Amino acid sequence: MSASVSPLAPKSYPDMPPIRGLRMATAAAGIKYKNRTDVLLMVFDQPAAVAGVFTRSKCPSAPVDFCRANLPHGKARAVVVNSGNANAFTGLKGRAATELTAKSAASAVGCAENEVYLASTGVIGEPLDAGKFAGVLGDMNADAEPDFWLDAAKAIMTTDTYPKVATRLAAIGGVTVTINGIAKGAGMIAPDMATMLSFVATDADIAPDVLQQLLSAGVGPTFNSVTVDSDTSTSDTLMLFATGAAAADGQARVTSVEDPALAEFRAALNALLKDLALQVVRDGEGARKMVEVTVTGAETGAAAKRIALSIANSPLVKTAVAGEDANWGRVVMAVGKAGEMADRDRLAIWFGDVRVAVNGERDPDYSEAAASAVMKEEHIPVRVDLGLGEGRATVWTCDLTKEYVAINGDYRS
Amino acid sequence: MSASVSPLAPKSYPDMPPIRGLRMATAAAGIKYKNRTDVLLMVFDQPAAVAGVFTRSKCPSAPVDFCRANLPHGKARAVVVNSGNANAFTGLKGRAATELTAKSAASAVGCAENEVYLASTGVIGEPLDAGKFAGVLGDMNADAEPDFWLDAAKAIMTTDTYPKVATRLAAIGGVTVTINGIAKGAGMIAPDMATMLSFVATDADIAPDVLQQLLSAGVGPTFNSVTVDSDTSTSDTLMLFATGAAAADGQARVTSVEDPALAEFRAALNALLKDLALQVVRDGEGARKMVEVTVTGAETGAAAKRIALSIANSPLVKTAVAGEDANWGRVVMAVGKAGEMADRDRLAIWFGDVRVAVNGERDPDYSEAAASAVMKEEHIPVRVDLGLGEGRATVWTCDLTKEYVAINGDYRS
Repeated sequence: MSASVSPLAPKSYPDMPPIRGLRMATAAAGIKYKNRTDVLLMVFDQPAAVAGVFTRSKCPSAPVDFCRANLPHGKARAVVVNSGNANAFTGLKGRAATELTAKSAASAVGCAENEVYLASTGVIGEPLDAGKFAGVLGDMNADAEPDFWLDAAKAIMTTDTYPKVATRLAAIGGVTVTINGIAKGAGMIAPDMATMLSFVATDADIAPDVLQQLLSAGVGPTFNSVTVDSDTSTSDTLMLFATGAAAADGQARVTSVEDPALAEFRAALNALLKDLALQVVRDGEGARKMVEVTVTGAETGAAAKRIALSIANSPLVKTAVAGEDANWGRVVMAVGKAGEMADRDRLAIWFGDVRVAVNGERDPDYSEAAASAVMKEEHIPVRVDLGLGEGRATVWTCDLTKEYVAINGDYRS
Repeated sequence: MSASVSPLAPKSYPDMPPIRGLRMATAAAGIKYKNRTDVLLMVFDQPAAVAGVFTRSKCPSAPVDFCRANLPHGKARAVVVNSGNANAFTGLKGRAATELTAKSAASAVGCAENEVYLASTGVIGEPLDAGKFAGVLGDMNADAEPDFWLDAAKAIMTTDTYPKVATRLAAIGGVTVTINGIAKGAGMIAPDMATMLSFVATDADIAPDVLQQLLSAGVGPTFNSVTVDSDTSTSDTLMLFATGAAAADGQARVTSVEDPALAEFRAALNALLKDLALQVVRDGEGARKMVEVTVTGAETGAAAKRIALSIANSPLVKTAVAGEDANWGRVVMAVGKAGEMADRDRLAIWFGDVRVAVNGERDPDYSEAAASAVMKEEHIPVRVDLGLGEGRATVWTCDLTKEYVAINGDYRS
């Protein structure tokens, strides 16, 4: 954990209501950190429906492999998450560690090993001594309680400067359900320190395949639209669990993603995912400003997103934001390098509401003072219109500061 | 120009012999900088064969458009380069500026406008007042002299901390010819300050289409294998001119790229391009270390290069190098995110001669002390073997330091 909290941290945390059917406990196993919790156990007393999306890395961590193998089974009884060690690039030892953890969790909770899910975040390449916490999972299960969300969020932090929680309510067929989520990540994607993990749970009764479709659709404009440093983790994990406890209130189980009763739930889930994703960006390593990049008028939505990510990942754009410099020439550069169709002479660029460029050149009414005023804000909206089609995308990032270099240059040694 | 010279600057400059048939002059036109030259005129008294490669940006500068249009003509009589303003994203005004410059240069030298080549480097989006130097091109032509390479290199600098020159000799059919080149660029690619420009000239007698094939083949493992910050410029320009003066010594004109007489010339040209490209990396903004990333054992050469660039462009790898941290976990991350085939469990990684990882986990003989010693050097070789095939590539980059952030956060405002 970093010494000073991000200036973009939320001013307060929401009250996180319990999710019926889910209990949690944390422990301080001393995996890497001293004097803090570093293990989280989530227990579903009845099998919960489960969905997950994972890193696209070709070198995923052992826990990612483990979760992917269990997911087709569709049921979850326990989740074990540790911080301080990613259990990535740890070879056979890594697989042994996931097996030991799964066996211990299954034994503690009384379930099958394929009902266990695992995630680890921290240093890459160090063997993880799962024995440090495997032995305490039984006690954790005994102690686990439903009202524990903020503690859970704290136990999975690495270089995060604040815990990330979010909650939403939604009605399904007139029955109110709750969705809670936690996340960690400070470079969205920074493999030996800030790997993005997020766990979301609801008491709604939804079949696993529907849950998976909701999650796969929801991740695109949320977690897959934020970037801190363009570095994709070996361990990115986002999981969604549905305990089904709301069935006791008369909620009819949802078995089709087309079910109209899902509309409000889908919207609430997507809002929660976006809330958590933006909290991750706002805790980006060294971040002082959040940048919201919107591309409109692209040939397709995919082209718009690729251009938006090119802007959001450009070190030159991000350092300009850090310097409060309305340097729209670098935005032009980033559009040009994205490789998607662009017509220089149709391009228009805004910082906030200030149009700085139009028709392939500086806006005739350009005001340096007005543009600079936008750059002094904490939240910098950048919009690019390509004037070619209807494709549209928004992504979020943070500025690139000397603190990012310091955090990442000084971390391991 | 930056106040302090890069610690990676060459200790001395080579003597640059004149290229017969080429004269140069510089002027201080006050485009942006005070008290320094900012315009370069190159004059070929007889039409020179010409070849060029340019940025792949979809938003290229006006001079890039201009050069591309003239290149099929195949002959050059004049080159005008200015620093301080990129004439990029300047709309109709930008085209008017290139037309004025070309007309003035053609008139000064006595040639057709399609025998003129142009390049500009500096701020994007500011209209370029070509009138500032168009009027002095006549005087510059009168004053131009052959022995002027170091001055030429200085006139095109922006945030470069040292001028970049290189020279090579080669025999073609027993006749010795000279190749000279200059380059600028400090972020290889940093659009409003460090755009990469390079001009290479030889007295060899080589047909334009052969020259183009040599240049197009030569740029891949040299200028297209260096990266400072992954940001592709609107203005990248590399041109090669052949005056043909060596014909007077009996050099038979080369009209086929398959001509065996080209072997030595090709090797010398490629060595010169690599020399200049590495000088650009070594002057990378804020650079204190050069990183040479070699990927072997990939499925194909293209896959190897993509993985190597993923490593070289990773902010987390680059900050680790800045921090002298042998953080090979970040190299694993960068391999994984490249999207090319990789098998975690066959991966091996070396820093210098120290193997840090093998068979998908930390090397059993890993020595933190030995790896750290490598990281303290100025030149850090990183090698990754994928164990899949014969594909191989090397790219070069520099570290990412707080100075990079300072230079790029403070530049324009």
